[in-house]
Amino acid sequence: MGMYLGIGRKARRAYGLDEIALVPGEVTINPNDCEMSWSLGEHHFPIPIMASAMDGVVDVQFAIAMGKLGGLAVLNLEGVQTRYEDPSGVLAEIANASNEDATRLVQGLYTEPIREELISKRIEEIKDSGVLAAVSSIPQKAERFGRLAADAGADIFVIQSTVSTARHISSEYEILDFKKFCTEMPLTVIVGNTIGFKVSLELMETGIDGLLVGIGPGAACTTRGVLGIGVPQVTATIDCSAARDFHFKNTGKYVPVITDGGMSTGGDICKALACGGDAVMVGSAFARAEEAPGGGFHWGMATPHANLPRGTRIRVGTTGTLEEILYGPARLDDGSQNLAGAIQTSMGNVGAKTIREFQLTELIIAPSIRTEGKVFQQSQNVGMGK
Amino acid sequence: MGMYLGIGRKARRAYGLDEIALVPGEVTINPNDCEMSWSLGEHHFPIPIMASAMDGVVDVQFAIAMGKLGGLAVLNLEGVQTRYEDPSGVLAEIANASNEDATRLVQGLYTEPIREELISKRIEEIKDSGVLAAVSSIPQKAERFGRLAADAGADIFVIQSTVSTARHISSEYEILDFKKFCTEMPLTVIVGNTIGFKVSLELMETGIDGLLVGIGPGAACTTRGVLGIGVPQVTATIDCSAARDFHFKNTGKYVPVITDGGMSTGGDICKALACGGDAVMVGSAFARAEEAPGGGFHWGMATPHANLPRGTRIRVGTTGTLEEILYGPARLDDGSQNLAGAIQTSMGNVGAKTIREFQLTELIIAPSIRTEGKVFQQSQNVGMGK
Amino acid sequence: MGMYLGIGRKARRAYGLDEIALVPGEVTINPNDCEMSWSLGEHHFPIPIMASAMDGVVDVQFAIAMGKLGGLAVLNLEGVQTRYEDPSGVLAEIANASNEDATRLVQGLYTEPIREELISKRIEEIKDSGVLAAVSSIPQKAERFGRLAADAGADIFVIQSTVSTARHISSEYEILDFKKFCTEMPLTVIVGNTIGFKVSLELMETGIDGLLVGIGPGAACTTRGVLGIGVPQVTATIDCSAARDFHFKNTGKYVPVITDGGMSTGGDICKALACGGDAVMVGSAFARAEEAPGGGFHWGMATPHANLPRGTRIRVGTTGTLEEILYGPARLDDGSQNLAGAIQTSMGNVGAKTIREFQLTELIIAPSIRTEGKVFQQSQNVGMGK
Amino acid sequence: MGMYLGIGRKARRAYGLDEIALVPGEVTINPNDCEMSWSLGEHHFPIPIMASAMDGVVDVQFAIAMGKLGGLAVLNLEGVQTRYEDPSGVLAEIANASNEDATRLVQGLYTEPIREELISKRIEEIKDSGVLAAVSSIPQKAERFGRLAADAGADIFVIQSTVSTARHISSEYEILDFKKFCTEMPLTVIVGNTIGFKVSLELMETGIDGLLVGIGPGAACTTRGVLGIGVPQVTATIDCSAARDFHFKNTGKYVPVITDGGMSTGGDICKALACGGDAVMVGSAFARAEEAPGGGFHWGMATPHANLPRGTRIRVGTTGTLEEILYGPARLDDGSQNLAGAIQTSMGNVGAKTIREFQLTELIIAPSIRTEGKVFQQSQNVGMGK
Repeated sequence: MGMYLGIGRKARRAYGLDEIALVPGEVTINPNDCEMSWSLGEHHFPIPIMASAMDGVVDVQFAIAMGKLGGLAVLNLEGVQTRYEDPSGVLAEIANASNEDATRLVQGLYTEPIREELISKRIEEIKDSGVLAAVSSIPQKAERFGRLAADAGADIFVIQSTVSTARHISSEYEILDFKKFCTEMPLTVIVGNTIGFKVSLELMETGIDGLLVGIGPGAACTTRGVLGIGVPQVTATIDCSAARDFHFKNTGKYVPVITDGGMSTGGDICKALACGGDAVMVGSAFARAEEAPGGGFHWGMATPHANLPRGTRIRVGTTGTLEEILYGPARLDDGSQNLAGAIQTSMGNVGAKTIREFQLTELIIAPSIRTEGKVFQQSQNVGMGK
Repeated sequence: MGMYLGIGRKARRAYGLDEIALVPGEVTINPNDCEMSWSLGEHHFPIPIMASAMDGVVDVQFAIAMGKLGGLAVLNLEGVQTRYEDPSGVLAEIANASNEDATRLVQGLYTEPIREELISKRIEEIKDSGVLAAVSSIPQKAERFGRLAADAGADIFVIQSTVSTARHISSEYEILDFKKFCTEMPLTVIVGNTIGFKVSLELMETGIDGLLVGIGPGAACTTRGVLGIGVPQVTATIDCSAARDFHFKNTGKYVPVITDGGMSTGGDICKALACGGDAVMVGSAFARAEEAPGGGFHWGMATPHANLPRGTRIRVGTTGTLEEILYGPARLDDGSQNLAGAIQTSMGNVGAKTIREFQLTELIIAPSIRTEGKVFQQSQNVGMGK
Repeated sequence: MGMYLGIGRKARRAYGLDEIALVPGEVTINPNDCEMSWSLGEHHFPIPIMASAMDGVVDVQFAIAMGKLGGLAVLNLEGVQTRYEDPSGVLAEIANASNEDATRLVQGLYTEPIREELISKRIEEIKDSGVLAAVSSIPQKAERFGRLAADAGADIFVIQSTVSTARHISSEYEILDFKKFCTEMPLTVIVGNTIGFKVSLELMETGIDGLLVGIGPGAACTTRGVLGIGVPQVTATIDCSAARDFHFKNTGKYVPVITDGGMSTGGDICKALACGGDAVMVGSAFARAEEAPGGGFHWGMATPHANLPRGTRIRVGTTGTLEEILYGPARLDDGSQNLAGAIQTSMGNVGAKTIREFQLTELIIAPSIRTEGKVFQQSQNVGMGK
Repeated sequence: MGMYLGIGRKARRAYGLDEIALVPGEVTINPNDCEMSWSLGEHHFPIPIMASAMDGVVDVQFAIAMGKLGGLAVLNLEGVQTRYEDPSGVLAEIANASNEDATRLVQGLYTEPIREELISKRIEEIKDSGVLAAVSSIPQKAERFGRLAADAGADIFVIQSTVSTARHISSEYEILDFKKFCTEMPLTVIVGNTIGFKVSLELMETGIDGLLVGIGPGAACTTRGVLGIGVPQVTATIDCSAARDFHFKNTGKYVPVITDGGMSTGGDICKALACGGDAVMVGSAFARAEEAPGGGFHWGMATPHANLPRGTRIRVGTTGTLEEILYGPARLDDGSQNLAGAIQTSMGNVGAKTIREFQLTELIIAPSIRTEGKVFQQSQNVGMGK
């Protein structure tokens, strides 16, 4: 397995979502007979779709709307929502910045300190509406913010960094003990992002409840360009799903794999699930909702990094309500709306009654659809003149 | 066979029409000595080209013109022709809509109910001209519309859905029994779309007369983007042709394979036939005919879907008469005109006297021609200034 | 050897010039010590570069200029030069036509009958200047025009069609007997175009003096789009060169392989020679010469085809004199000028003293250079604003 | 190893930086605990980054600034700095030239003879600032200019040509004896550019102190287009690093490999080091510094070639100070700033404490990030209208 890059050095070929397609089944099923629900810890959700902890996507109102529609949105505890009592002005500033100034502006606005009372307040606002509250921080802040979140009534805590492993080394700060955190905190714990069988297995063995998979593939993420690091999502999801199944056979505990990043259409989401994902975490697709606080703009969690920003603010536009994006009716034919309907229809066409059957779909390696139709478009110009 | 996408998960590499080319023969033949006729059930056609059941392509007048020229056009029984007594106004509205509004508009116009008397009327209009009448519907409507079509004198009935299999499951509606349909209806029956050896074989065993091959590759189709599903046409056509040959050896019944979707030039059509197709079904190339009702616009059959549209209205322009598109003289050099001449010339160059010989052409995997010549075009800009 | 395209059907992977690169040698040589001359029949040329028999490239004056500079230009006996006493007006019309009208116009202008006295006249004009006269026709006209050309004093006759084989079949016209033609005509005979070991060998066995290699790759050629036929030039040149070497071992007769089509830069030409070519035939690069009759425009020999044009008129601009294009000084850095200097420099860098050593250069498969540098160009836009 | 290009001819697949990515480690490290220093001969540098000997990048002031920041910049002894007492006017002329005229202008300006007293002067100016002085020439001038440089106090001498081997052949001029040069000159000697295990080993055996790796990949270089020659940087760096390790095992002398060309972002640099490079030499990224003499323009060392220019003047813009480019804070998120920070962060994420550990990073073959996100961008246009 692997190809020679040069003398004595082999590498695996990794695959991205653009490079594969799902093969229709020998049996097809009426989509309405297909069931796409999933479980995370003690929680059960009708649709396998989460919204990313990104400031252009999730605020309190968005989290409530998402929860009421059967999904789960994660609020970033280190973003504008916990730095500003009223972040609306700051969000408008970011939306109005020019492309040249956006990164610099975001860097500046995120130097405002985090106010712990806002952490509690945001969580309470979400809980007051009757939906689950999910929040996130980086590992170094997890101990402190996890405690605050638990006290405020949060249900799910996401510990997220560019690359997460169970074994981190530092001479400067204390390392988060995932095992201790999972045992002591009365919270469902998701950790990420990660790739690879072995690292996933080590993280699952610490007792976490869910794993975020994906390093470097997101639309608002420039990790691969800046650091050279990244693993395409097909290979990442398959490898981590193999770890999940191995861990389940050994321990009886099923730790769901949540593919995170790089999916902008229903087709991408279907592929991630068919590769073994139990759910997906989506950013840019939701940044286009009328409910999204970014006002049609979207930026990654590493964009504000003071010294080495690894994300970019992109304009995604506002194309419909969150309900339309999740359940349709789709007004666009590009796969960006009615994501739940797309999953169910795709499941029906490949003949999968449940997500776990969907995870076994036959995949093919296929040339990207994104370059098709070119000759046609060229030749049509000739005809246009008529 | 297959490559690892990740741990424990292999996938076949599938190929698209852009990725292959035909290898010229060791013997070449004067094209006029090459014969490209084919048979479907009891019907015989001089050219192996069908026009898709799409509302921008086929109406009664187009079907008549196509029949008189030796081809076969399929009229969609669930489109504007059976919903509107005079669809010309509706077609003009679609042509005049902006890109933003097109999908929404099409969705609305297709909520008008189908009028059964128009089904009979359209078929009779075609039959009155003396050519064969071919019509189509989805499986759920096939029983009812098939009966009506047969009564009205139709010759060929096409049962078409995004993904067709012989075994469909639903708790909500009754499943069409292809075997019963083929036995009871006094019609030549074509079923599609499908891919894969096993599904093709199962469908052929139900007694159908022709098979439409292709899921996800058409120019006006966004199935792969929306659902993640799709199989490139080279692999799909080869696999289904293998099923046809296997079925023929077992039963003595030859069920022609009709490659449908993703072909916009004579070159694409030649490749589909050389991959094993007995005929092709073409949409966008005919949407450019002066006779096409779409007025230079084209949209897929899933575009009107109320909740999850999977097609797009594209502008193709009007470039010539149907006769020019089929037989030339070509006024464009892009392969979009004189499709029959292209087939015959290609057959001559690879040394194939009949379509069945053409199906055995040596194929090569070759880098797409569509990106060639770029350096030249760049450097020519430098020269332009002179 | 080969990969599965589908069930039971394998195909070779063929390679184009864009996909390979030459590997520098373990020894390098001062380019001035490298010798790039070649022989065709009894003729010897200092540079391995021919100009294509295309009407935008070669007229009498161009052929004379090319001959005096050490190259060889082929005059098309079925183009405007033999249909019009003074073709300058016709050439200007083509240059001034819009993109939409160009093919149609060319089709019309080439319906003017060929005047045999002009064949003799053009050849005599070339011969009067003291250089070799090379002319071309399709196989069906070769018998008649070859006789006329020989009588007028021509030295080299090129029999050229889209796909040439030693075994052609037609019920309508008599087949050219290459063996008889080569024996009876007092001319050096080049035949093409072809690809493949076996066909090349069969053609060489008829007694021809040179072989044109390449089907479908040229910049002004749309054979692959229109007919689906084409073999990329790396594989085509290597296969035909293998036939040449095999034929030479068997018979002692060395039939040079001339790669024709798809080369627009010095780099492309170097690759074709390193793949085994003895010389190259170039069209578009010479259409840019001040001496070229096309006035900065270029069109393929199949463009005028009345029913199925398979070529396109492209604007290439005029960038320098023929001498600059062949020998420099290059004023452009894109590889389109000083083609001879590029060959010599490349030979030096791979350590080849002669073309026959150059034919043994180590090749690598390398990602196309044509898409490199994109990130840089994108990010530079950000900086531009400063 | 290798694939058939055609009958009897195999080729290796070589890989470029765009085609690979680094795999995060099983252990991660706090970047501040990662050490990226390297040694060249007796010199030690805190960061593994050199600036190319290109006239748009390095003059005396730039070399001083680079040295003070811990890097090393090489001054070209055959460029404008040694041809003109005050090159500022010449540099402004180049910056102001149109794209059409740039190559021609550069050709002309470089015909001005080199003045040897300026060689001494430039070196002394650099030395006066207290940093190391590194200068370069082609092999033919190395004997003469090396002597002058040593006398003026230079520390490092770079002998650079398009393709360097230990065995060059010429009937016209005397060949540089690398062994003699290294022995006799009181200078640290770097030689390049080269690729391949065997050539690298032969060059290392002559006693050189560092090797420049890379032929044809640079942004301002058109070697592959003009000559057809080039080896992508992943394969080149891996092969030459294998030679370095082999030579070290045999002799105990460690000759650092410096990857040169084709890297424009921190991600590219990280990949080159992870492929085995000890350091990188970067051109275009530094041409964007406020300190760069090119004023936002950049051109290759072969651009001035009188007869066969193989480089191009490109506009890169000015985006920040040299300090920002090396150490941040990055104001751009595209990976072009804070290159040292990117290396350290990448090392931390793959779990490498030193550059030599970084050289052992697991690599994967991954589809280029440069084409990702396209569907999203297309569909967003639809939303834009809202």
